[in-house]
Amino acid sequence: MRTVRQSVLDVLRARGMTTLFGNPGSTELPMLKQFPDDFRYVLGLQEAVVVGMADGFALASGTTALVNLHTGPGTGNAMGAILNARANRTPMVVTAGQQVRAMLTMEALLTNPQSTLLPQPAVKWAYEPPRPADIAPALARAAQIAETPPRGPVFLSLPMDDFDVVLDEEEDRRAARTAARVVTHAAAPSADVVRELAGRLTAARNAVLVVGNDVDAAGAWDPVVELAERTGLPVWSAPTEGRVAFPKTHPQYRGTLPPAIAPLAQRLAGHDLVLVIGAPVFCYYPYVPGDYLPEGAELVQLTRDADEAARAPVGEAVVADLALTVRALLTEVPGRPGTPAAPAAARPAVQTGSADEADGALTPLAAMTAIAKGAPENTLWINESPSNLEQFHEATRISTPGSFLFTAGGGLGFGLAAAVGAQLGAPGRPVVCVIGDGSTHYAVQALWTAATYRIPVTFVVLSNQRYAILQWFAEVERAQGAPGLDIPGLDITSIATGYGVRSHRASGAGELTKLVRESALQQDGPVLIDVPITTELPTL
Amino acid sequence: MRTVRQSVLDVLRARGMTTLFGNPGSTELPMLKQFPDDFRYVLGLQEAVVVGMADGFALASGTTALVNLHTGPGTGNAMGAILNARANRTPMVVTAGQQVRAMLTMEALLTNPQSTLLPQPAVKWAYEPPRPADIAPALARAAQIAETPPRGPVFLSLPMDDFDVVLDEEEDRRAARTAARVVTHAAAPSADVVRELAGRLTAARNAVLVVGNDVDAAGAWDPVVELAERTGLPVWSAPTEGRVAFPKTHPQYRGTLPPAIAPLAQRLAGHDLVLVIGAPVFCYYPYVPGDYLPEGAELVQLTRDADEAARAPVGEAVVADLALTVRALLTEVPGRPGTPAAPAAARPAVQTGSADEADGALTPLAAMTAIAKGAPENTLWINESPSNLEQFHEATRISTPGSFLFTAGGGLGFGLAAAVGAQLGAPGRPVVCVIGDGSTHYAVQALWTAATYRIPVTFVVLSNQRYAILQWFAEVERAQGAPGLDIPGLDITSIATGYGVRSHRASGAGELTKLVRESALQQDGPVLIDVPITTELPTL
Repeated sequence: MRTVRQSVLDVLRARGMTTLFGNPGSTELPMLKQFPDDFRYVLGLQEAVVVGMADGFALASGTTALVNLHTGPGTGNAMGAILNARANRTPMVVTAGQQVRAMLTMEALLTNPQSTLLPQPAVKWAYEPPRPADIAPALARAAQIAETPPRGPVFLSLPMDDFDVVLDEEEDRRAARTAARVVTHAAAPSADVVRELAGRLTAARNAVLVVGNDVDAAGAWDPVVELAERTGLPVWSAPTEGRVAFPKTHPQYRGTLPPAIAPLAQRLAGHDLVLVIGAPVFCYYPYVPGDYLPEGAELVQLTRDADEAARAPVGEAVVADLALTVRALLTEVPGRPGTPAAPAAARPAVQTGSADEADGALTPLAAMTAIAKGAPENTLWINESPSNLEQFHEATRISTPGSFLFTAGGGLGFGLAAAVGAQLGAPGRPVVCVIGDGSTHYAVQALWTAATYRIPVTFVVLSNQRYAILQWFAEVERAQGAPGLDIPGLDITSIATGYGVRSHRASGAGELTKLVRESALQQDGPVLIDVPITTELPTL
Repeated sequence: MRTVRQSVLDVLRARGMTTLFGNPGSTELPMLKQFPDDFRYVLGLQEAVVVGMADGFALASGTTALVNLHTGPGTGNAMGAILNARANRTPMVVTAGQQVRAMLTMEALLTNPQSTLLPQPAVKWAYEPPRPADIAPALARAAQIAETPPRGPVFLSLPMDDFDVVLDEEEDRRAARTAARVVTHAAAPSADVVRELAGRLTAARNAVLVVGNDVDAAGAWDPVVELAERTGLPVWSAPTEGRVAFPKTHPQYRGTLPPAIAPLAQRLAGHDLVLVIGAPVFCYYPYVPGDYLPEGAELVQLTRDADEAARAPVGEAVVADLALTVRALLTEVPGRPGTPAAPAAARPAVQTGSADEADGALTPLAAMTAIAKGAPENTLWINESPSNLEQFHEATRISTPGSFLFTAGGGLGFGLAAAVGAQLGAPGRPVVCVIGDGSTHYAVQALWTAATYRIPVTFVVLSNQRYAILQWFAEVERAQGAPGLDIPGLDITSIATGYGVRSHRASGAGELTKLVRESALQQDGPVLIDVPITTELPTL
């Protein structure tokens, strides 16, 4: 008969979950011991890094990530990253060791005393199996829940003395049956709903499409492009862009909607029907009061997330699979041959400085342009430079699915780690991480993993020695005079060296392009490029 | 009338909580704006660092620490550190910004959607005040709860649009009344309980004292020493030593009890009464089954923590203030003049290698001895090198209260950050942080704060490129073959340089002593000393 440990490994093998991101402690050793050759362990030096890497891995590979953390303290360190994974809708099974069952009631050292409460509200499910024989079935159930749309992280607390327990014959057979289960999630809307929506779309005088992160995540990119082209409607990205959901070079693309109530409604003025696909309605911030929609407009949201539908403050919603719904719409919506694509000039212009360089620092747009010039065609971009997103998109014009990741929840600490995991998840693609010098330090230890496992990521750190996005918010919120917005004295190249990562400081656009190109084309481990930039605050 | 922001500042002033540890985000700017001159803001680049610094500050200063984090993601990143603070019984008020009230129900970007659930179970209380006028009174209540024994962290979620609200006259007056409240916690046991316990102590044939962290935290050091000397009883430290609770040089001191059930009982064999003061019964780990106590022994625990009393698996408990209880006992326990102090040789010998150096690396004991030799008399020690604790205590023989901090819960990431905060909390003392190279990276960003604020901490990093304590556990648990226990390729001096910290690599005991001495005596910012050490695994 198998031990619990063997039954766990078999569940993971059956689901292809053989890459384990972790930071081990004593309570995890019984699970990790005699680590099998067909599994890969990826060590992070801090748990925020571990989960960030797993997040990027899952998003880039389209698979469910597996994580192992050290009981309470390890799970605690990871909570911000698990919240990010929840916002990103990342399927992820987070496991943590637990003290032996015989010492739980007395709360011996390293007991995780309320283990299923600790990861709340960042996980969809948290469980501590009541018996050793339940560990493998609980793992199978956890993976099913993680993969059910809206996908997200789940948590299992695993008592360390369970792993050496030998299953009896019946338990062994039952565990194998549970592990072999398959659950599919195919929720197509009824034909009536599709017909009614198609009718409204056809009858609308001036409809508009607003696309969001889940279009990319749900594999609905192609049908959404087809819907846009069939109808000739203009297309906006919903705020906040965690993924690119529509080709930025498409002539019908208009840009990203402003993330505040009044400006967003103003931008949509004149439209009578707003069809939102795969986005919350809406990810507003900051607060600029006003009506949610322009006069005379109706809104319909297509979403896979029943809660997202419930909490939208305005409009109707259809909860169903995005690709199936849009494909169904396509069978009902007549083409509009000859609908003229609106001129690309309708896109809002990016604010740029008067020169490309000042005091040896590149402007954000000049830096982004130089980076984009150096990056290969099929680059997978990770971005965590929130104050320079407009310039990034202006320069990169990403136009292929699955090519952009940004933390959807607004929490920092995702980018650096996610880039490392993303390269493991998409080993055939160049991965370029464009990140602010402030953002870099929330998960800086990921550099060590990249170096130690020779993971060829290009990190481009945009250094302006401040939390620029906060200086912008301070103006918007009339909240000047706050401390802690400047971060002088950081030398990321020296830190990278300390973690074993080759590093450079780029002194001009030409050198930056050259360094990015050289780094992105090589396969021999990570390279970090530090780029001094000027500060330009975004427009709302 | 005052604004909510002014009323908040007044509460904090009244309580002396004018040092704010934080990492700001947009949702915190309304609280932080026009930051007043009589407050000090200490920025950390990652939230685990922020709370770790606050933890050290509170423990070293004996005051309540104040923290400000960025809504959900910031609180999430700090959860491991908040769990540490809970284990350390650190009084700490953690605040986090929240989205504006008008955008909470729709969950706009950076809403902390279940703000009072997120910090559970690490906090004693979590609250989001229902109205702007409740912010200041909630803060006063939070501080009271944090300071009530057993002390610990509390959490407040503060909607960002509340701070500019102007209180009306009545609210203003009421808020001032609440802010001015004083709560004292003086729980002396009844005279009957004291007499009964004193009688048992006097009647016991062979009693023993076991002291724990809370003796130091509760200000009971002097009365406990007096009780030991009055009775002539041997004194052990309880596992796990988060603080030193008894002079290590005292002739009656016997050492630290082993942290496992059977060995601990064995070590106490022959005693008929075990009086535990200020410790859980017991912080066991790993699991070595056996009876909790030796044959014929009774146990009485004195604790300030009703839950700690409830969950002890054996013995009686008295829940009361430690200093008051021990002083009351002293009035009832007759002296035993002439009781011979047991010879110090009864202390278990530290395992040391055959030589002080091997392959250019110092043995742990040689390193600790060299560090101790260089450190001034009144050094405040922070330790996070769990595999070398015996050697550390052997070398330092700490014998004054409030001079040692180690994370009581076993979670890593406390040491480096806590040392920075401790120096701010005890500015007159040299602070030396002795930390493993693995432990260093859980909160490495604290180096930046130390450098930027010129905080004179001496960091000594013991480098053996592995999680040595896990290699020990792997042997104890027969769990060999686990991945992720080696951490090669780290150069902490280069990382320190990148954060602006002067750094050295010590190549021998003499140089190490000299570097520690020079660093500990200067006041011009932090110094990091990297020390290659050999690996010696502790004995159980």
